[in-house]
Amino acid sequence: MARINENYLKLPGSYLFAEIARRVAKFKNENPEADIIRLGIGDVTRPLAPAVIESLHKAVDEMGQAATFRGYGPEQGYEFLIEKIIEGDYAPRGVKLDVEEVFVSDGSKSDVGNIQEIFGIDNIVAITDPVYPVYLDSNVMAGRTGEYKNGRFEKIVYLPCNAENNFVPALPKEKVDMIYLCVPNNPTGTTLSKAELKKWVDYARENDAIIFFDSAYEAYIQEPDIPHSIYEIEGAKEVAIEFRSFSKTAGFTGTRCAYTVVPKTVMASTAAGEKYPLNKLWNRRQTTKFNGVPYIVQRGAEAVYSPEGQKQIREIIQYYMTNAKIIREGLESVGLQVFGGVNAPYIWLKTPHNLDSWAFFDKLLTEAHIVGTPGSGFGPSGEGYFRLTAFGSRENTERAIERIKTRLKL
Amino acid sequence: MARINENYLKLPGSYLFAEIARRVAKFKNENPEADIIRLGIGDVTRPLAPAVIESLHKAVDEMGQAATFRGYGPEQGYEFLIEKIIEGDYAPRGVKLDVEEVFVSDGSKSDVGNIQEIFGIDNIVAITDPVYPVYLDSNVMAGRTGEYKNGRFEKIVYLPCNAENNFVPALPKEKVDMIYLCVPNNPTGTTLSKAELKKWVDYARENDAIIFFDSAYEAYIQEPDIPHSIYEIEGAKEVAIEFRSFSKTAGFTGTRCAYTVVPKTVMASTAAGEKYPLNKLWNRRQTTKFNGVPYIVQRGAEAVYSPEGQKQIREIIQYYMTNAKIIREGLESVGLQVFGGVNAPYIWLKTPHNLDSWAFFDKLLTEAHIVGTPGSGFGPSGEGYFRLTAFGSRENTERAIERIKTRLKL
Repeated sequence: MARINENYLKLPGSYLFAEIARRVAKFKNENPEADIIRLGIGDVTRPLAPAVIESLHKAVDEMGQAATFRGYGPEQGYEFLIEKIIEGDYAPRGVKLDVEEVFVSDGSKSDVGNIQEIFGIDNIVAITDPVYPVYLDSNVMAGRTGEYKNGRFEKIVYLPCNAENNFVPALPKEKVDMIYLCVPNNPTGTTLSKAELKKWVDYARENDAIIFFDSAYEAYIQEPDIPHSIYEIEGAKEVAIEFRSFSKTAGFTGTRCAYTVVPKTVMASTAAGEKYPLNKLWNRRQTTKFNGVPYIVQRGAEAVYSPEGQKQIREIIQYYMTNAKIIREGLESVGLQVFGGVNAPYIWLKTPHNLDSWAFFDKLLTEAHIVGTPGSGFGPSGEGYFRLTAFGSRENTERAIERIKTRLKL
Repeated sequence: MARINENYLKLPGSYLFAEIARRVAKFKNENPEADIIRLGIGDVTRPLAPAVIESLHKAVDEMGQAATFRGYGPEQGYEFLIEKIIEGDYAPRGVKLDVEEVFVSDGSKSDVGNIQEIFGIDNIVAITDPVYPVYLDSNVMAGRTGEYKNGRFEKIVYLPCNAENNFVPALPKEKVDMIYLCVPNNPTGTTLSKAELKKWVDYARENDAIIFFDSAYEAYIQEPDIPHSIYEIEGAKEVAIEFRSFSKTAGFTGTRCAYTVVPKTVMASTAAGEKYPLNKLWNRRQTTKFNGVPYIVQRGAEAVYSPEGQKQIREIIQYYMTNAKIIREGLESVGLQVFGGVNAPYIWLKTPHNLDSWAFFDKLLTEAHIVGTPGSGFGPSGEGYFRLTAFGSRENTERAIERIKTRLKL
């Protein structure tokens, strides 16, 4: 008799966005005239850069001619793209990578979800809290956790990030093996300095742990001295796997291209204590269970690295970061405590009067007709916080802040 | 200390294509003037259909304008494509499906590799032999096998398919839980009748087993009465998951789009014996670890279902199937025993004089300067067989057969 993977039954259900939709629908039903502004959206809204569009068209034409048609490409991605990634994203920061250390994929969600497959089931997983749910859920599904009790999974080490510790997670007291770090952070919009990140690299080296470094938002970093890549930290190439994406960097959320860096020097152990390169395991995983990114899309991603492409995507990022500034300053002007939004498109606010996250959601919706995301949806330490994002249009962002200033009863 | 997934170490290494490349390189080095023809290729060579190209261009333009730009789409695929799939591929065969039963993905390789994740580790897996390696390797990596000994994995039930049983696998004597069937078959090019397939559906219903039905080559079926979908068989909706792809149907090997059908009525059990719908588990898997297929690509796939798209892809398939006929008849004319090539783009030949697969590879390469694929590379029962494919150009196919007739010493 075929049996299911019962680990799936431990998952409490992806309740967050369904519940948001339910509450918004109810409000709209009762207030049909309300003009709701959505600042909860974690998705880009600006169109693809002209340089990318041009490159996509050219690649489509190639696919229509026998002489230039492309069938299966390398599962790891085309070298034309990998070389641009290394030259464009790493060489300028003094990070040297081999083409075999970069794996192009259809998205960081796939990669951060799949990476745990190459690890044993008994590893102890640490996540920051609040957190992007995929890190946790993929490990639940694989069986690396116990049951879900009181908002937490047994066996998982939660690393709280809140105003009290300035959103800098403390090193775990217990020994952990797999550590997920998202910098700049989703959902808090905060980041880590080189010195703070170095503590994690040192911990991983001392404890033979692996760091999964999700830097999907690195292009939003505005301040100097904030590391864009974990490989800027000495020793990181022994312990860290880095995830990057074109989703937020170049508006590829609906176009799908990302990449994962697995240096050949990152090792984990067999039960017998032998070191084994993770690059080889990830290559085997990808060549067995993945067939590469569309040629057309890889040509689109390549265009991001052209001088025009770079200029165009920087303008789009600046557009969003101006929104972030408007939101941040607007919220501060009415006395709210605000985090993030300086090096990331996310603004994380402390709810006023110790309201819980859902109570503030209802308040913002009913008083200002604005939809955001309750912080508690990202983990127990998100309770009492609330996420707004800079991905809306300028007009809606400005209107939303005007409403918060004039309609929200604080 | 982070531990690796040691199941990966059981894999003997993907030796087949590397060894082919090595032997061809050696031969070329020693015979620089030789004009080698490759009939080993499992990849399409004809360009995308004009209707698809037009649709791709249109979608690229949409992505360049704010009003029509698309960000994250549904992980399960856009309804505009799912509805076309149901209307175009299933309704004409009397198969009714709900939009929530079809999951669009980046490829059947991903789906057949990932599907095992929603099943428990103790299930017994049956594969036909020879076989597309992903079914087996993905289960090895997940830990559903023992060690690899004498060309076989412990715990796996191999179902031999050879000339003796006319490539119709016999029902397993032992009880199995997960059954992989590829029809029309890669690598043998053979197929199953409705009556033969019904035996499998009946077996699965009686034994609470699940059938993974890979019909990536269904568009190549030429004869009537060969089932295109397993859901043409009564009761299959209780026990079968079907995989389809645009790769071979519409030349999407480098464009990446496929889909998987998981009827809501397909169930597997919990340890407590409760039935649980696999549709719900697959939906959870996909929404957690996948972020959908590029909007542009889904619009390209949609165009396959337009009247012009259908006409154009049928012409391309006919082109390949004419190649298949040329190969089949050419091989038969020199007295070789040949299978497949009637309802599939693969021709499976019995090596003459009981040569082993690699000896025939060397003979074909050195005498006729043709590269094919040794059958033993697909499993122990592939020994003594050899695969040629119809995906080359007409000119090369004709030249290859001429060489086999005139140069191969039989």
